Amino acid sequence: MEADFGRVAIVGLGLMGGSMAAAISEKAPRCHVIGIARRASTVARARMLRFVDEGTQDLANGVRDADIVVLATPVRDILDKIANIGPLLKPGCLLMDVGSTKKTICEAMSRVPEHVQVIGGHPMCGKESSGLTMAEPDLYQDRVYVLAPLPRTSEEALDKAIRFVRSLGARPLILDPERHDRMVAAISHLPYMLSVTLVSGAEDFVGYDELTWQLAAGGFRDTSRVAGGSLPMMLDILATNREPILEALDHAQNSLSRLIQLLQGNDMQGMEEELSKARTRRREVFP
Amino acid sequence: MEADFGRVAIVGLGLMGGSMAAAISEKAPRCHVIGIARRASTVARARMLRFVDEGTQDLANGVRDADIVVLATPVRDILDKIANIGPLLKPGCLLMDVGSTKKTICEAMSRVPEHVQVIGGHPMCGKESSGLTMAEPDLYQDRVYVLAPLPRTSEEALDKAIRFVRSLGARPLILDPERHDRMVAAISHLPYMLSVTLVSGAEDFVGYDELTWQLAAGGFRDTSRVAGGSLPMMLDILATNREPILEALDHAQNSLSRLIQLLQGNDMQGMEEELSKARTRRREVFP
Repeated sequence: MEADFGRVAIVGLGLMGGSMAAAISEKAPRCHVIGIARRASTVARARMLRFVDEGTQDLANGVRDADIVVLATPVRDILDKIANIGPLLKPGCLLMDVGSTKKTICEAMSRVPEHVQVIGGHPMCGKESSGLTMAEPDLYQDRVYVLAPLPRTSEEALDKAIRFVRSLGARPLILDPERHDRMVAAISHLPYMLSVTLVSGAEDFVGYDELTWQLAAGGFRDTSRVAGGSLPMMLDILATNREPILEALDHAQNSLSRLIQLLQGNDMQGMEEELSKARTRRREVFP
Repeated sequence: MEADFGRVAIVGLGLMGGSMAAAISEKAPRCHVIGIARRASTVARARMLRFVDEGTQDLANGVRDADIVVLATPVRDILDKIANIGPLLKPGCLLMDVGSTKKTICEAMSRVPEHVQVIGGHPMCGKESSGLTMAEPDLYQDRVYVLAPLPRTSEEALDKAIRFVRSLGARPLILDPERHDRMVAAISHLPYMLSVTLVSGAEDFVGYDELTWQLAAGGFRDTSRVAGGSLPMMLDILATNREPILEALDHAQNSLSRLIQLLQGNDMQGMEEELSKARTRRREVFP
């Protein structure tokens, strides 16, 4: 039977929200998709692309009769909206989000009025570029979509969220918010910080010699890629996942010191062991 | 007029040497290409692929009448060969190499008997995988090929090396060995060390939680990519470019400490400036 979630309101029509609207419209056409965005031009474009059945700049109007509301704005804006959206939603409405960190968001969700069902979420996809122009119905296809239920989340609400995520083509994974935040600190936020470390370290070391940058090839390009990503998004993440990121950075600092000591001490056997361990793990993760 | 460098002997038929042989055979067919490899199977395969006109496992025989000899083995083997190859070469022969570090190699070249012309070289290309099976005639196409002449290198020899590099399809760039080594420490060896730092740091932090690795997506994949590369090659590089790499690592350590301090102190404005500087530079280097 075809998925039908009734009226689905998506708040924020950037890369994540726009792609979600497109995916539902294409893969669960019986749903009525309402797109909500700050700018009239974004709403107009989403309608033109047939990503939404209806569009508005008015949050209250857009979510009023919704059965599912998905917050797809930057993390700090999601937190603002969670604090205020409760009274605008009808009883039994399921409130979801796509924010990159979960503990802070789930804490905020725990204070939403009881007539609303809540569940945190984080789809593990994205692109270097953001915005509705980059959105596409297959962004979620076969990607892991973390769902973080709260103690108050009902079985029915969790079940509905799982079916919703599956209808986007994604693979739901139930995780505790704290465990999620530690994991993404390690596999998403740490790479970003080390990517910035690379660019800044190289800049301090030989940045004055402009010719250096012309020699930069594949290794530098890939290792520095995420340092070129969205700044507001990273600042939101750093602000809402501070403790796990600090812990991850501490481990990275120890690992870097270890490499420096081995090289200083000319301990090439110890170095080989250290490099070999990392190489083996890397090849296990991405065979 | 078509390039003719007479007899060109390539010592080592891995990715770099094999691709060079293939490029000359294709782009300067008047040259006579001699391939020299340790294993009979490699020699046979290079002949079968028509990458070489002639192949041998015997270094002395292979280089005896050569007008150009290119050493394309790992760095420490290049150093061994430079120390012993002089007496095997005919007067006026041009000895080149493709090693990733230049100061140590050029120092070794300065001790080659005077009847041989010498020039260091480093083509800025490569792949994650090595070996003759990955070789292709277009590996050098449009890539920067650093040439590091010694004080004793004649104008004619430099000119010949430049023409040879151009005939491969590459873009010659004349650099002092020390300046080259600082540059590659920044844009090639530092990315590797930080890539290893990422994998080891993440492993120490949450590696015990195996589910973590299943969530690893694009950001982790790209930032950790070079940590999966060739170990012997990196150990050679670390052994022959120790000082510049230690200096680059020191700068990276300072940059990482700065990020940690900003996050610890909740200085989000300072953080934004730091991240923004790296982002701007990254986008300048790879627009």
